[in-house]
Amino acid sequence: MTDSLPIIQQRLDNLREQMQSRRIDAYLVTNADPHNSEYSADHWLARKWVCGFTGSAGDLLVTHSGGGLWTDGRYFIQAIKQLEGTGIQLFRKRIAGTPTIAEHLADQLAANSRVGVDGRTINQIQFEELKAAFAAKNIELIITEDLVANIWQQRPARPTNPVFIHDMQYAGKSTGQKLADIRSLMLRDKVDQVLITAIDDVMWLMNIRGRDNAFFPGSEAYALLSQNTAKLFMDSKKLPAAVCKVLLQQGVSCWDYHELPDTLALLDTHKNLKYSAYSSNSLLVSRIHPGVTCIAGDTYAQRGKIVKNAIESEQLQLALKYDGTAIVQFMRWLDENVHSGEVTELSAERQLRSYRKALPNYICDSFSTIAGYAEHGAIMHYSATSNSNKIIGTDNYFLLDSGGQYLGGTTDITRTFSFCELSEQQKIDYTLVLKGVIRLTQTKFLKGTAGNNLDIMAPGALWQQCVDYKCGTGHGVGICLNVHEGPQNLSQSVKDNEPLVPGMTITVEPGVYREGEYGIRIENILQVVPVAENQFGVFYGFKTLTLAPIATNQIISDLLSKEEQLWLNDYHLRVAEELTPLLQPIDQQWLAGATQPI
Amino acid sequence: MTDSLPIIQQRLDNLREQMQSRRIDAYLVTNADPHNSEYSADHWLARKWVCGFTGSAGDLLVTHSGGGLWTDGRYFIQAIKQLEGTGIQLFRKRIAGTPTIAEHLADQLAANSRVGVDGRTINQIQFEELKAAFAAKNIELIITEDLVANIWQQRPARPTNPVFIHDMQYAGKSTGQKLADIRSLMLRDKVDQVLITAIDDVMWLMNIRGRDNAFFPGSEAYALLSQNTAKLFMDSKKLPAAVCKVLLQQGVSCWDYHELPDTLALLDTHKNLKYSAYSSNSLLVSRIHPGVTCIAGDTYAQRGKIVKNAIESEQLQLALKYDGTAIVQFMRWLDENVHSGEVTELSAERQLRSYRKALPNYICDSFSTIAGYAEHGAIMHYSATSNSNKIIGTDNYFLLDSGGQYLGGTTDITRTFSFCELSEQQKIDYTLVLKGVIRLTQTKFLKGTAGNNLDIMAPGALWQQCVDYKCGTGHGVGICLNVHEGPQNLSQSVKDNEPLVPGMTITVEPGVYREGEYGIRIENILQVVPVAENQFGVFYGFKTLTLAPIATNQIISDLLSKEEQLWLNDYHLRVAEELTPLLQPIDQQWLAGATQPI
Repeated sequence: MTDSLPIIQQRLDNLREQMQSRRIDAYLVTNADPHNSEYSADHWLARKWVCGFTGSAGDLLVTHSGGGLWTDGRYFIQAIKQLEGTGIQLFRKRIAGTPTIAEHLADQLAANSRVGVDGRTINQIQFEELKAAFAAKNIELIITEDLVANIWQQRPARPTNPVFIHDMQYAGKSTGQKLADIRSLMLRDKVDQVLITAIDDVMWLMNIRGRDNAFFPGSEAYALLSQNTAKLFMDSKKLPAAVCKVLLQQGVSCWDYHELPDTLALLDTHKNLKYSAYSSNSLLVSRIHPGVTCIAGDTYAQRGKIVKNAIESEQLQLALKYDGTAIVQFMRWLDENVHSGEVTELSAERQLRSYRKALPNYICDSFSTIAGYAEHGAIMHYSATSNSNKIIGTDNYFLLDSGGQYLGGTTDITRTFSFCELSEQQKIDYTLVLKGVIRLTQTKFLKGTAGNNLDIMAPGALWQQCVDYKCGTGHGVGICLNVHEGPQNLSQSVKDNEPLVPGMTITVEPGVYREGEYGIRIENILQVVPVAENQFGVFYGFKTLTLAPIATNQIISDLLSKEEQLWLNDYHLRVAEELTPLLQPIDQQWLAGATQPI
Repeated sequence: MTDSLPIIQQRLDNLREQMQSRRIDAYLVTNADPHNSEYSADHWLARKWVCGFTGSAGDLLVTHSGGGLWTDGRYFIQAIKQLEGTGIQLFRKRIAGTPTIAEHLADQLAANSRVGVDGRTINQIQFEELKAAFAAKNIELIITEDLVANIWQQRPARPTNPVFIHDMQYAGKSTGQKLADIRSLMLRDKVDQVLITAIDDVMWLMNIRGRDNAFFPGSEAYALLSQNTAKLFMDSKKLPAAVCKVLLQQGVSCWDYHELPDTLALLDTHKNLKYSAYSSNSLLVSRIHPGVTCIAGDTYAQRGKIVKNAIESEQLQLALKYDGTAIVQFMRWLDENVHSGEVTELSAERQLRSYRKALPNYICDSFSTIAGYAEHGAIMHYSATSNSNKIIGTDNYFLLDSGGQYLGGTTDITRTFSFCELSEQQKIDYTLVLKGVIRLTQTKFLKGTAGNNLDIMAPGALWQQCVDYKCGTGHGVGICLNVHEGPQNLSQSVKDNEPLVPGMTITVEPGVYREGEYGIRIENILQVVPVAENQFGVFYGFKTLTLAPIATNQIISDLLSKEEQLWLNDYHLRVAEELTPLLQPIDQQWLAGATQPI
């Protein structure tokens, strides 16, 4: 997968030459696109190209004598391997004693040093953190041109696929109405202008979708709003005239992507501007007229987007129903073929994709499938390669986490399969993971309750046996947008304190990961729904939107309460009722067996 | 209870005269002592004296034309009644649209107005909040002398009761050792000096206790520490020579309370000072030499105090065991006497106190007893008076929340009693409250889990039936100190995110409050204990320290899981085993009946 060491060393040397000629002592290289997206188009994967580290998270610092790579626990082993011989040191993020990049630079560099970065590839929060750390030693932080561009031959071009209208039958609310909603909030908050920089926020607001990369149907774009104007900034080549016309009817004028910086430089200084410091890159922010009062914060689109309207909810349910039929077909295929000893992680992944591709409104997968047999299932972000590919046997768990992008919604589902009786420990682990899913799903909660308050309902089922899965329980999900959508979330973190309100979607995905042995995860998408309003307050609960059988062959019934058993049987009844009409007889028959009550 | 309207009006007029002569446009009056204690000595209850409002929480603002009182939902009805005719307007705290005092003043006062306050009666946080709000209109915030002192005849004197040594057999750690622990943390954090202003922190550090007021065995005092010195500042009259001598042996020098401000004014400007902006009053902070670098934050004593050492834990368990015998005696007495129709809320309260008074090491009650029959039980902070006093009947619930201060620890227990079969709704409510107690008590949790993560385990039992109790689930408890001790806590609030660690104590006290009908609460004190450490992490759980029967006569067994029923029966077995040896035969016999398995 990665390039050879001499090639990497040459790239680092070439970059150092670029730095030298600009008197830059340290240069920061990330994989971020200018919108700080979760999935950057290939064009933006500069960190990967320069140093050869292929992990999904990690920032590179290059100095004349060496450098450092900051990544998290998922990638320590991989990073050590891939950085060997490069002179780049691994910095283990979130491990006690590891300095941040800012702390490291402030500590190591001499006073009056110069640190450079392509300002498009770090957001305003990171930029300000670096500046603050550098102040005491008078280290200069310079937004440079893209030095990597000067040395990267055959760099993938920025995507040029055209965008398309996300029809009202899926979006459920017109751009005009979304603009009106945002403008009324702007009036309430005395906000004159809003700059929207997160791609999914812009896509949601404009009711358009794109194809910039493999997993995320978005397209690089910005929006700038006031009470009277709504401007969309996007590469003109990606914007068909027909789309422009529809947007114009909704009160949106289209501008080229590159016209935004100058527009920001010419803003009226008497009017304030709200923007997100998380999704706005530092170069862009530096171009805002210095006289404009900037307000960092929520730009309304994000909060409008995460609360799904009735039509979005209905379409998402429909997408998940079809997605469920692909899962059923896959499960039957797996059942029938695994005993041949010829099914591998990669062939299983391909097989499932083939079922999804045949579904209505399928666009692409929503993330890189995790198909891990036995000990591979314990690697939380495993992705099978031709080197790692394992045959799926019958004496251990096979964990499969996958999802699709459909016009009606984004899906994300995990099921864990097995094909003969496993050990007592494996059965207990499986049953407790399922218990966690059910306990959280059954929870009713008072209005105001946030993800960090609710989270314990899932891991708590495992904690009673002193087992933990070392990560959050769930994340928001977009509508034909990001498979990880925030800020709503299920985790103990103090930051994940967004109150859950009806319309929001969230995954519940507890697991057990026994290193070197196996992994178990069961994941459904839930939607928050109203439950009751009385003298004690307003109560919410969850509806499970995912419709696919949950394997019952390793369940120890005694570990589930009567209510939990009832929930599972009711769920399977519903799965059978909803999916059967959409399936072929052979799959109908298989499903009938898979959804028998325990 | 309160003074007549003409008297109150005279006091307000007198205060306005004081303001007039100093060109003060608005004057702030609180009930806070200079340490921002939960229970202020009577001397400090200026707000109550000036305006006649007797609630435990509320700040008064007096202007020349009127004024305002800010209090919370517990006191809205009472405040309206007590403020009638005074011209003081009620401001409902935590209700949408209610401005804070700072916002109200900034909005209402003309530019260049002058606002006064006795700086001892607001803490540094409030002071800075007011200053920030006033900046835009150039409103001056002036720390004045105590204007109320000039008009309050027969004001209660500041307490003069002497302090006494809290013996090592209860404290478990010497002052010398506590000082050494704090000094090592100061070195780690590069903190040169620490100013400790919370009374309970000073009492804990110095291993002394006092008798400044009815419920809290503390005494107004400060401590100032460096690597080489430890100074205790306290009214010399309250400090017996024998206590001074013991302190000196631990490396503590004693100074008069009034010597602290000058000491702060003369601090070495090359050394920094850490202090708590919450418990430090603004006058005191204003006296710190302006050249000293002040660090607002945790002053180490608080975090040392909340994690109980082995001897403290043992002594607290013993105190709760004795406290339990008082509860048993009381419960038997109540059972035998309630049918006479002569037991009242007040007589029950007195009876329980008489049992506690007979116990070893009893000092005083730890808070004002809540003894509420029927609808009085639904008033969360009810305190029976001769006017409100109800006869305890047999056709509803009687809620009793009480506690004692003992040398070995502070207790806080709620039990809810009934004497014949109640309605289905009443039984369900009772059982779900009990379920909440058990669910939380049984929870095992990963290291790092905080109160706001755990809380749901208790109210969640009620939320499943769409019932809520509109407050947190529990609070920390001191060792012969404050009955409410933080920062550990059980509530959903983002602020209550203090991870729970072994040694901490916390109450669990869910309830159901049906306005105008009845209240149910069951409260135990728990201690965090280690449970396991394995490949998944470190796990903690709870041990119940409270030992007293929980009434079983309204329990609907089917609403409790098998594990929950087992927990209750095991608990009652333990209560019987531990308390029986300490009881008279008649109470032993009663207890045997009360602790029968369900």
